[in-house]
Amino acid sequence: MIKTDILIIGAGPTGLFAVFEAGLLQLKCHLIDALPQPGGQCAEIYPKKPIYDIPGFPEVLAGELVDNLMEQIKPFQPGFTLGERAETIEKLDDGSFIVTTNKGTKHQAPIVAIAGGLGSFEPRKPQLRNLSQFEDKGVVYMIREPEVFRDRKVIIAGGGDSALDWSIFLADVASEVTLVHRRNEFRGALDSVEKVQQLKNQGKINLITPAEVVDLKGTNKLEGVVIKKTDTSEEIALEVDNFIPLFGLSPKLGPIADWGLEIEKNAIKVDNTLDYQTNIPGIYAIGDVNTYPGKLKLILCGFHEATLMCQSAYQRIFPDKKYVMKYTTVGGVTGFDGSKKEAPKAVVKAID
Amino acid sequence: MIKTDILIIGAGPTGLFAVFEAGLLQLKCHLIDALPQPGGQCAEIYPKKPIYDIPGFPEVLAGELVDNLMEQIKPFQPGFTLGERAETIEKLDDGSFIVTTNKGTKHQAPIVAIAGGLGSFEPRKPQLRNLSQFEDKGVVYMIREPEVFRDRKVIIAGGGDSALDWSIFLADVASEVTLVHRRNEFRGALDSVEKVQQLKNQGKINLITPAEVVDLKGTNKLEGVVIKKTDTSEEIALEVDNFIPLFGLSPKLGPIADWGLEIEKNAIKVDNTLDYQTNIPGIYAIGDVNTYPGKLKLILCGFHEATLMCQSAYQRIFPDKKYVMKYTTVGGVTGFDGSKKEAPKAVVKAID
Repeated sequence: MIKTDILIIGAGPTGLFAVFEAGLLQLKCHLIDALPQPGGQCAEIYPKKPIYDIPGFPEVLAGELVDNLMEQIKPFQPGFTLGERAETIEKLDDGSFIVTTNKGTKHQAPIVAIAGGLGSFEPRKPQLRNLSQFEDKGVVYMIREPEVFRDRKVIIAGGGDSALDWSIFLADVASEVTLVHRRNEFRGALDSVEKVQQLKNQGKINLITPAEVVDLKGTNKLEGVVIKKTDTSEEIALEVDNFIPLFGLSPKLGPIADWGLEIEKNAIKVDNTLDYQTNIPGIYAIGDVNTYPGKLKLILCGFHEATLMCQSAYQRIFPDKKYVMKYTTVGGVTGFDGSKKEAPKAVVKAID
Repeated sequence: MIKTDILIIGAGPTGLFAVFEAGLLQLKCHLIDALPQPGGQCAEIYPKKPIYDIPGFPEVLAGELVDNLMEQIKPFQPGFTLGERAETIEKLDDGSFIVTTNKGTKHQAPIVAIAGGLGSFEPRKPQLRNLSQFEDKGVVYMIREPEVFRDRKVIIAGGGDSALDWSIFLADVASEVTLVHRRNEFRGALDSVEKVQQLKNQGKINLITPAEVVDLKGTNKLEGVVIKKTDTSEEIALEVDNFIPLFGLSPKLGPIADWGLEIEKNAIKVDNTLDYQTNIPGIYAIGDVNTYPGKLKLILCGFHEATLMCQSAYQRIFPDKKYVMKYTTVGGVTGFDGSKKEAPKAVVKAID
């Protein structure tokens, strides 16, 4: 059982910043995210896209923003349960909650803050009769650890940035990379398209277009695929160890929708007049996952909501303590790791 | 008459960021501030202090944050009325407002956003019988343009960073710099204290401590001061062109307190359930100047409040238009100056 003060569901920018504000209040955080790394959409979907509306950054790449937030929260040593989806919640008699993931990992905390963004990102799957039979047995929707493909034969399907980027990356790792796309045209960064063209010319990527994977073969695990050229209807059988369809991710509120929270327009209703708490005391919702009158789904709004949530959480945990806010410009930042950041102190010194 | 869409009173971080969010909605802003430069406290009081709680900045100097915000809002060409204090407000029949400063500059806008921080910063003044007689005639509380002291004899009073820093700066500009402080000890950055010691040793700064200015002399303008050594009671008469007492600034809500706005604990009450509007429709209050249940006086909260204020202002100005928010990651930023920032577009390109 993982125990913490604030259990944050969703490790996007809002969830990450909550760790910092909680840390200033001496509260510890643990984050759960279905994606394999922190950063949410910013890290998974558009790490190289510039964002222009983060206050104080005329321009920042989404991935850089995540890196900066990770650096900012480092002193407060957050815990992470990554690549697992928060599945069920249970309220104990002492008022605390137990959240269990789809892999059975259990977390206990007096406060749960849902910072789930648009939901957990689920891969779009191809329509194949026996797909589910090979899931986790050769069929992979999200690449967490590229090394597992070392010296294996892989086939990637898709025509966007993910398909292009992973084909490029795995060309140096896998023994054989085949890229299949239903059109001849790919849609992505110019660099990536040109790099794939080059690797194809060098024989490092086997390109089959326009084509689709139409069948999977194997007994206990995936052993091959059948590819159909959509222009000629020719069918090609190919031996492969892994089939990686990269057709994009689509966000789903998922199991959280069944936690008894008030939902409106696929988002969780919160009390914006006070602290972004949901209808269940002790459970908050912050960032894109919540809704209230005038709500804007902007990262900068999530930062504000996370901050007010932490203040409210502190009062729930310590109803008798009165917290007096200290500015970081005055009090500095004292990390749980013993680190201390503070402004250079003024000296009092005679001049003679 | 200066005309604009949103008239922002206060050019601190919150007011500055409002320009950006308004710009995304194609609304123009003009800012009024009593200080001689944009940035509010961050620029005037602690430009060299690190702030640790701006989301995405593990550490940023207050002055850097202001520079970044100025860069971020540049495409939206805000207007500035600096060194003037918003004094009176008048509502016209068409619902728009006219705000006049203490120097008589008039501004007209359908929306007024008060982003006044803790108030306008007023200098703490020494107790001298004939002080007001020499204000603007040799007595200066805030240095806007150091060049006006070129080749003049100046006396600076004070023992903090401002007194130290301006003594150092003016040592190269004025013909004579005298620094007076009631103690021998100065309180400031170690660097500054040591630099003043050095300039004193070189004879570039004339240091008189422990001492106070006790009288001002002159007919039509300041011609000299009388300094009293507080240890020996000895009095020294000194010919000077300028007396610059730097005893700190203290924020005062000032004339805004008389605008008919609901005030609570020296702050302006706003409707945080919707849009941070005050009790007067069309007048908003954002950032440290406002109050509502759970209010935190943090810069990051001001950013959020500014953003929701702009959305509400847009709806007031264009009641019939429906605005659909576009993410800057998708739509980029189109400046009023014709500039355009946007993410590199994906290409659609065949690989053969």
